[in-house]
Amino acid sequence: MATSDARPTEMRERILTAAAIEFADRGYAGTSIGLVAEKSGTGKGLVQYHFKAKSDLALALVHASFSKAPFANVLGDARPAHGIEAIVASIRGVAGAFRDDVRVRASVRLVREYHLIEATLPTPYVGWITRIGMLLREAEVAGEVPGGLDHDREAWHLVAYFSGVQEVSNRLTEREDLPERIEEMLARSLAALGVVNLEAFL
Amino acid sequence: MATSDARPTEMRERILTAAAIEFADRGYAGTSIGLVAEKSGTGKGLVQYHFKAKSDLALALVHASFSKAPFANVLGDARPAHGIEAIVASIRGVAGAFRDDVRVRASVRLVREYHLIEATLPTPYVGWITRIGMLLREAEVAGEVPGGLDHDREAWHLVAYFSGVQEVSNRLTEREDLPERIEEMLARSLAALGVVNLEAFL
Repeated sequence: MATSDARPTEMRERILTAAAIEFADRGYAGTSIGLVAEKSGTGKGLVQYHFKAKSDLALALVHASFSKAPFANVLGDARPAHGIEAIVASIRGVAGAFRDDVRVRASVRLVREYHLIEATLPTPYVGWITRIGMLLREAEVAGEVPGGLDHDREAWHLVAYFSGVQEVSNRLTEREDLPERIEEMLARSLAALGVVNLEAFL
Repeated sequence: MATSDARPTEMRERILTAAAIEFADRGYAGTSIGLVAEKSGTGKGLVQYHFKAKSDLALALVHASFSKAPFANVLGDARPAHGIEAIVASIRGVAGAFRDDVRVRASVRLVREYHLIEATLPTPYVGWITRIGMLLREAEVAGEVPGGLDHDREAWHLVAYFSGVQEVSNRLTEREDLPERIEEMLARSLAALGVVNLEAFL
């Protein structure tokens, strides 16, 4: 069998991708170790060699997604960005990941279904709020926003607004209109922050 | 037994309230007809006389909440409000219902868990977006907002922003900071809409 030749790290990745597809599509309750084994073209024993329980699959996906660049930080490969430019890149990056990366999609769904999962998942939102708060402080020093903003409060609102935009876009259009809605959100939010020379960032 | 004396409509309401508490707390998957019977102080047979399946309990709760005033309309008992005043009353009313009304809380959770439920739930958001779009048109006629806004698009963003605010507030503080966050959201959103004489509405 071709799959038996795969090296352990390759097999682990293949299992995680299969699990992500199932979690994103069926949710935590609808996914089983047996289904993940079938979808990754291997057996239950090999899945359980890498991940003892279904909750370990969920944890591995969520931890990997949450430690990834756009959630806590800006895009890893992009040239270094600062202040408002970094905030815009981060919000666009997370929106893109929601659309294009099934592991991120699975993680977002799993984090919403945390009550079903017998493991402690990381708390969503807080890392991103902290990071955006820091970037708003940078933006103030650089003269990109007026002084006197409550940076952490504004960061909270950016993350909450983003979260609602992705949720409603997902529910009403399966995220088809997400890029357009994100640009609309950015225009409204940056204007509300009083960003100087707004057009340069959009 | 006292419960046997209850008239059918009273018993139906008692069962629905017990179901709402369980759905809000444990979600759809964690709730059963047996548990609802126990919590409403009756038997499985009587629950099933009113609601054949668990999905019928979920449907009844969601339909009642969605047809209720604040979702599609403004608060039922309040004096008639128009334009921006009605939008503010509607957003505050829905936020209050999320905090104080276990049937609304259950409905919101059930609508999020729609993939688990063997019944077609009404689509969330769209009724409220339509209603707020109409109120924004009223507001334009009354000179409360500048002309030329895309009312339905702005309504979409108000509902999405609200949805994210309640989600993040729920996740990080179990909605303890929701009233404060809603006022912050209203101040930012009405300013972004260019509402004339803003302070009069907040």
